[in-house]
Amino acid sequence: MDSHIRFDAREGVLHLLDQRRLPEVEADVACRTPDEVVDALKTMVVRGAPAIGVTAAFGCALAARRAAAETGADARKRLEAEFDHIARARPTAVNLGWAVARMRGVLAAAEARGALSPEEIVALLDREAYTLQREDEALCRRLGHFGAELLHDGDQVLTHCNAGALATAGYGTALGVIRAAVGQGKRIRVIADETRPFLQGARLTAWELARDGIPVTVACDNACAHLMSRGMVQAVVVGADRIAANGDTANKIGTLGVAILAGHFHVPFYVAAPLSTIDAATPDGAAIPIEERPAEEVTHMGGRRITPGGVPVLNFAFDVTPAALVAGIITEAGVLRAPYGEAIARALATRGGEGAR
Amino acid sequence: MDSHIRFDAREGVLHLLDQRRLPEVEADVACRTPDEVVDALKTMVVRGAPAIGVTAAFGCALAARRAAAETGADARKRLEAEFDHIARARPTAVNLGWAVARMRGVLAAAEARGALSPEEIVALLDREAYTLQREDEALCRRLGHFGAELLHDGDQVLTHCNAGALATAGYGTALGVIRAAVGQGKRIRVIADETRPFLQGARLTAWELARDGIPVTVACDNACAHLMSRGMVQAVVVGADRIAANGDTANKIGTLGVAILAGHFHVPFYVAAPLSTIDAATPDGAAIPIEERPAEEVTHMGGRRITPGGVPVLNFAFDVTPAALVAGIITEAGVLRAPYGEAIARALATRGGEGAR
Repeated sequence: MDSHIRFDAREGVLHLLDQRRLPEVEADVACRTPDEVVDALKTMVVRGAPAIGVTAAFGCALAARRAAAETGADARKRLEAEFDHIARARPTAVNLGWAVARMRGVLAAAEARGALSPEEIVALLDREAYTLQREDEALCRRLGHFGAELLHDGDQVLTHCNAGALATAGYGTALGVIRAAVGQGKRIRVIADETRPFLQGARLTAWELARDGIPVTVACDNACAHLMSRGMVQAVVVGADRIAANGDTANKIGTLGVAILAGHFHVPFYVAAPLSTIDAATPDGAAIPIEERPAEEVTHMGGRRITPGGVPVLNFAFDVTPAALVAGIITEAGVLRAPYGEAIARALATRGGEGAR
Repeated sequence: MDSHIRFDAREGVLHLLDQRRLPEVEADVACRTPDEVVDALKTMVVRGAPAIGVTAAFGCALAARRAAAETGADARKRLEAEFDHIARARPTAVNLGWAVARMRGVLAAAEARGALSPEEIVALLDREAYTLQREDEALCRRLGHFGAELLHDGDQVLTHCNAGALATAGYGTALGVIRAAVGQGKRIRVIADETRPFLQGARLTAWELARDGIPVTVACDNACAHLMSRGMVQAVVVGADRIAANGDTANKIGTLGVAILAGHFHVPFYVAAPLSTIDAATPDGAAIPIEERPAEEVTHMGGRRITPGGVPVLNFAFDVTPAALVAGIITEAGVLRAPYGEAIARALATRGGEGAR
């Protein structure tokens, strides 16, 4: 499919496929200001850690345009404030802060070589955001290539949430692994957990796999144990929003449960994520902030109230899976295996040109 | 609350609170024929194993009225066919077949003492159905009394689906345990899994506990592991649709997952069910039939399609929790403990007056 994140540099508009309306309606949201990008991130027009990073990068490019339209010595300072604002749009996905830091870094490096005009800043950030987007899709394909080796012809693979093309610049992480395995000629069928409350599995994973002709079946989240107990799941592959230095992995709420059940039923549980999802500054899962989202996501469905008025709800958006439950972390640098502390340190050290962040 | 199952013997109408419309609308469905009762059972106007049993008993009483209105030698035979029809309305809850067998049994016993007029058959079955309803609520209270001892002041108790007043003649099994503990002055808070796809937790458990002033919070099914990992759950109590002779327990889809997670996090997992839920003729969980329900329960929500057209879904309504994961089976005869094969055989043998079924 066309990328769901399309930046029109000439018009200064970021077109985002509105994931809240899929699969019923395929429509874009157009963002012209960094505030509109922040709003789109907060309300989940776009979601998925790598896609959040790409979107944030284009948000920074829009911020540079706004700064270019302003006058006075404060313009540069206000640009930094816009960067901060974008970086705080959501708390859990580390790719968000990573992408903004990368935009900030490329700007600082250029400014260290000499003053830039507002137009030069815009051009620089546009270029970097486009590069980040291209890189993200390319690394998903590399990651998919490594992960495909872990799946076998005839496997039924369970995935939770959407770690697909819609969660990245394209191709996907967990779904990239599945796409690559299918590309190798393996007959892979997918079970998509529906993934309450936002239904990323039922709506998004099912939509993009069906478009690709990959057999997909939707099941409620709570069916996972039953399906595993009946031998209907040969592997689990999920994405990640932040991986700590020890391999503990934050991902969509419900992932921890799937991982524990997979362990119980001796089904391998894999995490697929780019190295940018690893936060070396976070020692373990206990240090990862877990977003709590609005109650309305749980209390209402299709505009209709499903819980009695006055009854509170819990709506944690993520949970943390301990590294011990992970059979492998599939990255663009290969499949990392336990002990993850060492494997992660090695992968980050040998990442080469990008350097440490 | 008034019972949600109200039989008007004079008018020959069974009034069932329509659980599909709660919590938004409190309205009854009126059943005048056994077919209407079967339809109400199939479409889940009423659900929950003990409530299904009570409803089926009144359905038999309605069948007797229909037979009384007919003439000819076949009337008695057709009554038996109606009994069969009711008993097959849903496959998993053993209380359904048990209740119909009880009605059949009381009729056969009376007929063995002498021929009955159609009106006498109606009166006999009315009386037996009312008795069964009264007994069910009474044994829920006994069961609750035994189970309450397992909960401690300050506990937050997680429950799955609805094993409450709405799932029984009144008071509830799992929620009966909670009501009894609250009645003892213990401060108990409840987490209700929302329980996709029918949302019995979000809609029904939340509704009836809130009406009773018992603190209840709703969480999506997939939040269970996260809540347990944070120490937010001190005990799990669920109901059952059928318990095999070895203690394996069929209950609402998702129960198996909760049980495995509870084991992982060292949270005690209790099943609360009347002895009528035990099917001594079923040796273990593998022999329990698992109902698959219509795809639309998963594909649509509040009238709106949430999965892409053409994508299949899995909708198993129940799963089986192995006895090894159960810390205790709370019955009206006390709390059964492992080894369950012996404990169950003993409890059924000493049930006394009711005899073996």
